[in-house]
Formats: sequence, structure tokens, C-alpha cells
Amino acid sequence: MSGVLFGLGLGPGDPDLVTIKAATIMREIPVIAYVTPVRSGKPCTSFARSIAEPYLIGEKEEITIAIEMLDDPTRGRQVYDEVSDKISYYLDSGRNVAVLCEGDPLLYGSFMYILDRIKDSYKVLTVPGVSSLSAAAAAANLPLVTRHQTISLIPATLSESKIRTCLLKGDSIAILKLGKNIVKIKKILSDLGRSYDAVYVERASMMNQKILSLSDAPDNAPYFSIILLTCAETE
Amino acid sequence: MSGVLFGLGLGPGDPDLVTIKAATIMREIPVIAYVTPVRSGKPCTSFARSIAEPYLIGEKEEITIAIEMLDDPTRGRQVYDEVSDKISYYLDSGRNVAVLCEGDPLLYGSFMYILDRIKDSYKVLTVPGVSSLSAAAAAANLPLVTRHQTISLIPATLSESKIRTCLLKGDSIAILKLGKNIVKIKKILSDLGRSYDAVYVERASMMNQKILSLSDAPDNAPYFSIILLTCAETE
Repeated sequence: MSGVLFGLGLGPGDPDLVTIKAATIMREIPVIAYVTPVRSGKPCTSFARSIAEPYLIGEKEEITIAIEMLDDPTRGRQVYDEVSDKISYYLDSGRNVAVLCEGDPLLYGSFMYILDRIKDSYKVLTVPGVSSLSAAAAAANLPLVTRHQTISLIPATLSESKIRTCLLKGDSIAILKLGKNIVKIKKILSDLGRSYDAVYVERASMMNQKILSLSDAPDNAPYFSIILLTCAETE
Repeated sequence: MSGVLFGLGLGPGDPDLVTIKAATIMREIPVIAYVTPVRSGKPCTSFARSIAEPYLIGEKEEITIAIEMLDDPTRGRQVYDEVSDKISYYLDSGRNVAVLCEGDPLLYGSFMYILDRIKDSYKVLTVPGVSSLSAAAAAANLPLVTRHQTISLIPATLSESKIRTCLLKGDSIAILKLGKNIVKIKKILSDLGRSYDAVYVERASMMNQKILSLSDAPDNAPYFSIILLTCAETE
């Protein structure tokens, strides 16, 4: 009988924000796979594996997903094809495999590329995780959205005109994938007169978490940072 | 020294989707507070407390937040004022208090009404939880959003014209707070020719979870249901 593929959401960074379910699966699973970012040809620490570390009991087979931090879909496709082949090999041998995912696997997560390749041939169980959005709001004690309001998540990688359009129409907004794009976002929010209600949260839930006003935010924000513009009504 | 108020996200329903952090706090906390919905004058089971049940070890003081299922902000204000007074009493005596919250406390959660009343006088720590959005996507193995896409969460309680506008502009959409409003949503999606790509998920992560096409969804959906319209690109 074939093994099962688990997509495990591990939350925003604090290992205590792993769910009981993900922790239990990690203790028992024989094979784990996780992204190892590659920068300038060198593999970096896997953030997902570092969150999982306290729960990885005993010997595991490990599959690394070495992804160059370039926006090159062709290379990405090749890596996910190869990784999916490796995962299929273990599933065929009857062993279960867990893909370790930062945050929630299906919200801007790369797990979907493996899911897409595996789901028609094997059983896949996705375990949802705490998102960086929820963690950022919790860090700042900032209600995201309430009652009859909407909230939109937008990536800072979008064009200036698209971001402007999103900002003009929504109720609450969360801007993700900041990096160097934060400079563009600062300019847009300043133009729209909305800098004052923007809160910048960096590495929510981690030891080096920071909560800053937008003017104090760096011009090259880490990937694990988020800008919140919320307008929740309390009663 | 005053106690600390914890806003504990308990996830979408499966007690195994509680985080290690929330479970640890619940084992030790002396006082818990939770919403008990009141229908036709009768208190119903607290969903939050039922998720927490396996983790409530030993004697606890319990504060119920009895909320009539009517959209009456005045009555809501009075209940939250009274509950916040009770919580303050315990905090003043040096005891920690946890508000048990379904899903994530700050995403359409009523915790914000207590947070708003308490945060200027006491220390508040919010523990983020797995949202029903992430749980619905996981149940259906459906990528929510990827790369340069946006996702908007919209409550079905909005007016038909507002919902139509949201649906015309966004990439991925999740529609929450369905109830009887699902009839309106079905009509709008049918008019816009988008019924075919809508997935209905009821009670994600629970024993009685259902994943249905929109045409098979009931006309009076439970509160814990969600419609997903996603357009994630895989590579």
C-alpha cells in the first residue's frame, strides 16, 4: 500500500506555535522534505526545518528542496519535478512523507507545487498552520478585521498601479513579501496619506520580533515581515 | 502584580489543531472566559470551550460571555463591559485569565472587544491560531493564493452590490459568515458565471466536515462554513 503525503503547516516561527497534530506527525514520520534556499550558489539554513527541529525524534530520511532565490519558473519546475519523483519513490515503498512548510501550506506556500504533482496518484493530507498574518496581528495586538469588513492580502511584488488600486478599495489590508519592495510601498502609502495607520511587523513570534511604525521600518525588509493597515471596529 | 490576559486562538475545531503554546497555557491558567451563544433565550454549547476541553486540566474559574445571536451592538457592548469588569477583577488579584477563541483571535474574532477594553490597563498576550480559512483550504487540498496574486476575505453579510464589486476585482476570494446569506451568494456567483469554480467547505477539520460543489451546498449554511474561489497558479 502506498504511503501518504502530509503537507505540514508549522506556523510563523516559534516552535510552540506548531499544532499538536503537526508535532505528532513529525515524531512518527520516517521521511521529511523541506525547502533549503540557495543564495549565490550556497545552501542556507532551512527555516521550516529549524521550526520543526524540537519534534524530529529519531532517524529520518531527509529530502532537501534546493531553490535558488531567483524568480526563474523554469528552474523551479525542474526542482519540483525532481523532488516529487523522490517523494513518489518513498510513497511507493509504503513510507509516509511530510513536507515541512513555514506558516500555512496553502497561503503563499510552495507546498502547492508538490501537491499539484502528487495529488492525482497518492493520498495527500494537508495540515493547516498558523499564518504569518495571524502572528503579525497577535504580535501587535491589532484586530485585523471584524463584522462586515473585508481584508485583502497583497504581495509587495505587484506593480505600483495595482497596489494603489488595492489600497483605494479595501477595508483592511496586509502587505506581504516586502524585501526591497518596501521602499515602493512606503512611497505609495505616503502619497495616499496612509503611512500613519500602517504598522510594520518583522519576524512575528520569533525571538527577534520587531513592531515598528512604517517610518522606522528598514528599506530592505526581511522576507518574514508584513505591513498591516487595519480598520477593525470595536464596540 | 496584576495578572496577564491571554487571547488564545484554538483553531478551526479539531482539538489536535490547537498549538503547543495554547495547550500549555490552558493547562496552567486558573481562569478561562469563553463565548456561550444564546439562541431564543437559551444558552448553547460553547464551541471554543469544546475545542479546549482536552486541555482544561484541574479546577478553573470560568467566565461565560453570553451573547444573543442578534446583531444588536448595544446589548453586545453591555455584555463585553460586564465581562471585561469580571476579567479585570481576576487580573487585579494577580491571576492570569485566558479568553478561549475559535480560529484566530484577531480575524473576525470577538476577542477584539475584550482586548479593546483591557489593553490600556493590563498586559495582553495574543496567541495566534489556525484560521478557518486555512482549514477549509487544507480540507479541500486547494491552494489559496500564490506568487503575485491577492486574496480577499469577504463576509456574506455585505450587500449584494458590494459583494459583486469584490468578486469582479480580486484574484482569490474566500466568502465567510454564510448562514442564510448563502442564497444571495449562489445567485451572484451564478450571474457572474463563477459557480463552477466555487468550492463549499463546511466544518473544516471536524468529524462532520463536508466539501461540496456550490450547487450541492445547503441554503442555510452553518456559521462554520466557507466558500473558496481560488486561482492559484502552479508551475
